[in-house]
Amino acid sequence: MDRKLPLPSIERLCALYGLLQRLAREGRLRISSRELGELIGETADTVRKDIGRLQTGNAGSAGYEPEALRQAIARSLGLTARRKACIVGLGRLGQAILQYTDFAGEGIEICAGFDSDVNKLELLSSGIPLLPSYRIAEYVRSEGISLAVLAVPPQSAQGAADRLCAGGISGIVNFTTPVAVPQGVEVRMVSVLEEFRVLSVLIEHEAGQSRS
Amino acid sequence: MDRKLPLPSIERLCALYGLLQRLAREGRLRISSRELGELIGETADTVRKDIGRLQTGNAGSAGYEPEALRQAIARSLGLTARRKACIVGLGRLGQAILQYTDFAGEGIEICAGFDSDVNKLELLSSGIPLLPSYRIAEYVRSEGISLAVLAVPPQSAQGAADRLCAGGISGIVNFTTPVAVPQGVEVRMVSVLEEFRVLSVLIEHEAGQSRS
Repeated sequence: MDRKLPLPSIERLCALYGLLQRLAREGRLRISSRELGELIGETADTVRKDIGRLQTGNAGSAGYEPEALRQAIARSLGLTARRKACIVGLGRLGQAILQYTDFAGEGIEICAGFDSDVNKLELLSSGIPLLPSYRIAEYVRSEGISLAVLAVPPQSAQGAADRLCAGGISGIVNFTTPVAVPQGVEVRMVSVLEEFRVLSVLIEHEAGQSRS
Repeated sequence: MDRKLPLPSIERLCALYGLLQRLAREGRLRISSRELGELIGETADTVRKDIGRLQTGNAGSAGYEPEALRQAIARSLGLTARRKACIVGLGRLGQAILQYTDFAGEGIEICAGFDSDVNKLELLSSGIPLLPSYRIAEYVRSEGISLAVLAVPPQSAQGAADRLCAGGISGIVNFTTPVAVPQGVEVRMVSVLEEFRVLSVLIEHEAGQSRS
């Protein structure tokens, strides 16, 4: 893959990847950059530029063939590798992610859940091992888990992140408060509150523009 | 606010806002752009540039005062407006967001939950109205709700989005499959699977660089 690919391009291409997968499943044979852009909230021009960064044939005026473009993105970004993941924090959010069944088809195997509340672990039923949090580092290392979802309360966030990093985790999707991690560990923050904030700014912006 | 502020800057400033709030609460009196950058996963230089876009005093070598910087961001971005929000889809994820209590202190009032399963609505207990989905458009309009979380199954996503848009919604945090919305409605996609994908690309990237 192109090592110079900037993060925003990676993000958009990953968004396109998921979208194209759905379109291919629905049997769509062609889609324009304009429609792709609308569906991921970007301009047609940005979509064309991102796709232009891939080592792939050009679309021309007839648009893109969804499945071919999806495969081109997968090859260019290296999305074909299989990865093991775990979920840390089994409250409602962690349970919701644990229930989500679409990961397996995407090469991502959720192979453990962790919670510090041993009583909760006994009450939950799951096809995968649910383990106490003190086992995080050991289990992540022994199973070769590279991805984690962090869904613990804020006061437990740094401690849980430290355990994941001690186990050699590579990437964390963080639903809780920001945490410090060693160099080389990638973190993606997910926060409804922050998304609300970004939306509020965009809405104000839009209102300001339509008034002017 | 600066109408030319690009989306990535808005996103980073919103991330900084949440972080600064936490730091101020913890009693931190000073923080450097380097440490701010580390905590939100950006370079010190990017942080300084974003802050430089605000109408605010400069930090100099002594770093920033968290509470003063937070207020400057709030003023510049217009984050002081109060907004009403609703949650559409009350599965585990929707319930987790419904339970989250930190919105109120942020000027965001979650004032309704919707689900198409009337039996579920009866079983859930909440301090706010939980209503059947066919009432979305009417209720969003009459209450002046501007923000929504979309947390329904994929097959219900477009229908629910259409109802929100019919009610005049301004912004949607979308946890489900991408939806088409009219011009002027802002959508922020949130997807664990997509975050896993972005992490996978970043990890491959990192591995490639350390091998080279």
